[in-house]
Amino acid sequence: MQKYLAEFFGTFMLVFLGTGAVTVAAGNTLTIGLAFGLAITVSAYAFGGISGGHFNPAVTTAMVINRRISGKDAVWYVIAQVLGATVASAVMKLFVGGLGLATNQLGQTDFPKISAGLAFSVEVIVTFLFLLVILNVTSNQHGNSNFAGLTIGVTLAFLIIVALNLTGGSLNPARSFGPAILAGGSALNHLWLYILAPEVGAIIAAVVARVMGSED
Amino acid sequence: MQKYLAEFFGTFMLVFLGTGAVTVAAGNTLTIGLAFGLAITVSAYAFGGISGGHFNPAVTTAMVINRRISGKDAVWYVIAQVLGATVASAVMKLFVGGLGLATNQLGQTDFPKISAGLAFSVEVIVTFLFLLVILNVTSNQHGNSNFAGLTIGVTLAFLIIVALNLTGGSLNPARSFGPAILAGGSALNHLWLYILAPEVGAIIAAVVARVMGSED
Amino acid sequence: MQKYLAEFFGTFMLVFLGTGAVTVAAGNTLTIGLAFGLAITVSAYAFGGISGGHFNPAVTTAMVINRRISGKDAVWYVIAQVLGATVASAVMKLFVGGLGLATNQLGQTDFPKISAGLAFSVEVIVTFLFLLVILNVTSNQHGNSNFAGLTIGVTLAFLIIVALNLTGGSLNPARSFGPAILAGGSALNHLWLYILAPEVGAIIAAVVARVMGSED
Amino acid sequence: MQKYLAEFFGTFMLVFLGTGAVTVAAGNTLTIGLAFGLAITVSAYAFGGISGGHFNPAVTTAMVINRRISGKDAVWYVIAQVLGATVASAVMKLFVGGLGLATNQLGQTDFPKISAGLAFSVEVIVTFLFLLVILNVTSNQHGNSNFAGLTIGVTLAFLIIVALNLTGGSLNPARSFGPAILAGGSALNHLWLYILAPEVGAIIAAVVARVMGSED
Repeated sequence: MQKYLAEFFGTFMLVFLGTGAVTVAAGNTLTIGLAFGLAITVSAYAFGGISGGHFNPAVTTAMVINRRISGKDAVWYVIAQVLGATVASAVMKLFVGGLGLATNQLGQTDFPKISAGLAFSVEVIVTFLFLLVILNVTSNQHGNSNFAGLTIGVTLAFLIIVALNLTGGSLNPARSFGPAILAGGSALNHLWLYILAPEVGAIIAAVVARVMGSED
Repeated sequence: MQKYLAEFFGTFMLVFLGTGAVTVAAGNTLTIGLAFGLAITVSAYAFGGISGGHFNPAVTTAMVINRRISGKDAVWYVIAQVLGATVASAVMKLFVGGLGLATNQLGQTDFPKISAGLAFSVEVIVTFLFLLVILNVTSNQHGNSNFAGLTIGVTLAFLIIVALNLTGGSLNPARSFGPAILAGGSALNHLWLYILAPEVGAIIAAVVARVMGSED
Repeated sequence: MQKYLAEFFGTFMLVFLGTGAVTVAAGNTLTIGLAFGLAITVSAYAFGGISGGHFNPAVTTAMVINRRISGKDAVWYVIAQVLGATVASAVMKLFVGGLGLATNQLGQTDFPKISAGLAFSVEVIVTFLFLLVILNVTSNQHGNSNFAGLTIGVTLAFLIIVALNLTGGSLNPARSFGPAILAGGSALNHLWLYILAPEVGAIIAAVVARVMGSED
Repeated sequence: MQKYLAEFFGTFMLVFLGTGAVTVAAGNTLTIGLAFGLAITVSAYAFGGISGGHFNPAVTTAMVINRRISGKDAVWYVIAQVLGATVASAVMKLFVGGLGLATNQLGQTDFPKISAGLAFSVEVIVTFLFLLVILNVTSNQHGNSNFAGLTIGVTLAFLIIVALNLTGGSLNPARSFGPAILAGGSALNHLWLYILAPEVGAIIAAVVARVMGSED
């Protein structure tokens, strides 16, 4: 139970700080990237000791594939992550409405400037890189457990900065689910891409990280 | 005595660096958030070894509830924090005046764009999240003492960034008290909210953190 | 083989995050500097345990001179680095094209505002400082292995910020090679400078660091 | 000799990265503050193992007063620091000139907006806070040696951000000496203030830190 609460609050923090930086704070590119990324860093150090600190169904997928977590825990982790993201978006909708801003702008992910094919590729590539870093930095063999939280968060921050103008930079099905459900519209129609593409990237990373010795 | 000096200087640093970034530096959103947040980080590493590094009456409240500090120390901590914040604001008033800026703009907290009800909710929610991170990252059971200072400061930075356009992002009765006393006006009239709401958030977090095993 | 993969992916991250911050993200000076620098930090913590974390032929040169790596490994490291940088630029070209941006603007390095002589000096000086920090912070004698990744990345970030308006701030022959090959034009004509000058800076640093006791 | 080289290069890095962020990079407030501050962080981790990492005559003064360094070393440290800062400014003058910028704008410190009395007070206060953090975070009794470099640099960054519009934020006689000597004019006339005020702040901090138990 404590593990699932940890996953709930960690994913809540990610969506709350990240989409909050986009919406009520109207932050610049660096602020938005760091808000999402460092939300993972602080949640990893605060809640990671309880649950391992996934906060992302794609991370949980890679961890199941490389047998670092049980299938049963994985299912509950994903449920907790999706709930955390959705509650965070509901709170953000309240904040945005209180300021008189449009309540269909909740920092949801979409790709108005590029094709669905390129958007899919972008999310696969950045999630692949994200998981490659996670699986290696948390490797018992050659990782660095002390700096893992900082490494993972900073990696996410700058991958999001690169992807921001392309796909919004999700890398996380739960992070896209929460805002899309509450904002509706095009983001909801494109939700399938933000669920599928990160999972594909995570699966490839799980295999490549093994080749690099992450599970030895 | 050394403990109370540590709380005095840590809270002084928070208000000095944070409201200084707002007023004399005219910093952007990221600069302001980081100035407040990283003031806590550096004070935690420099003075936390002496006092535990609260620098915030809401933090002290949660620590008393979860029996990590005595009631007597708590009273003196809050007095030292309020004094530190007030002296920092007095110094900032001198700087602001020396530059020819309005001396009733001292980086005080207020909520001109939203209702008092929403403002109260915002401060409860962000302080709840702040304390949830603090209580878990400093937990003997599953925390990370080395990275606690960095985690707590970065969390504060991005919670403030989200709350900046809503309530100014206090999360700390002492941080609101100092500037309000010296600036007067609406901030002083609304001071009750910035004292009460963070305390409510801290109390809820103390209970939830226990459920997550922070005191086991 | 794992070592060469680590060098490939680390250098890929550097060019992907760094030139991505320049091109698709249109980041400001701080964002660009941090993107390049912190790419090295995260790759050092994630992949450094496998290969030592060079991600730069100039770093490999200094490490060979001070006998921290074999000549055979050095050759394969440089090949992996050049490949990683080039593949990252090919991916970035795809992204830039998908957005309808000019595909001959890939964040390549050039010096339109200054003479070739000054550009050469700038790259020698900043690479010298970069390697002086690397060789000392990774010294068994007086370094700090835990904070080495963070130190090296932050150093690169701010050296690039200083050099950005002068030479683009390469400090890394592979980082200049990848974008230049795919962008062509003036950057390709000036590529010799971005290969030669960082190597000169690295060689001088290898000698000075020894005087400072880095290899004792 | 190695100790003095370490002080030379650390102070060189401070002036090179800091004033470079001001001049050739035309950085914003956050970029400038972080450039100066994190220059100290990276130099502390890279060269601090050799010399202790002062890079500032005011720091050396406080260390002599609290008997952490000998008087003879202190003299050579200050000479090395002043030399490092001056050589860095000479290099920066070359860069600025190569770009066609005014060579009397080298990021020197001055106080055009406020009185000399207030400027003196500002430099005393910020240097006092800076040294209070340094002396406590490096205290054997209650400091944190691992995070000392990060703490000291981040503290400097945000103290400079607060002081930037008031005095330029020196806190360091060597950092003001180098650019003033090469830029001349008003900065040279006001140099006495930037030498005297930081030393006063450092002396007060040495006493207060002892009261807080830093030397126990």
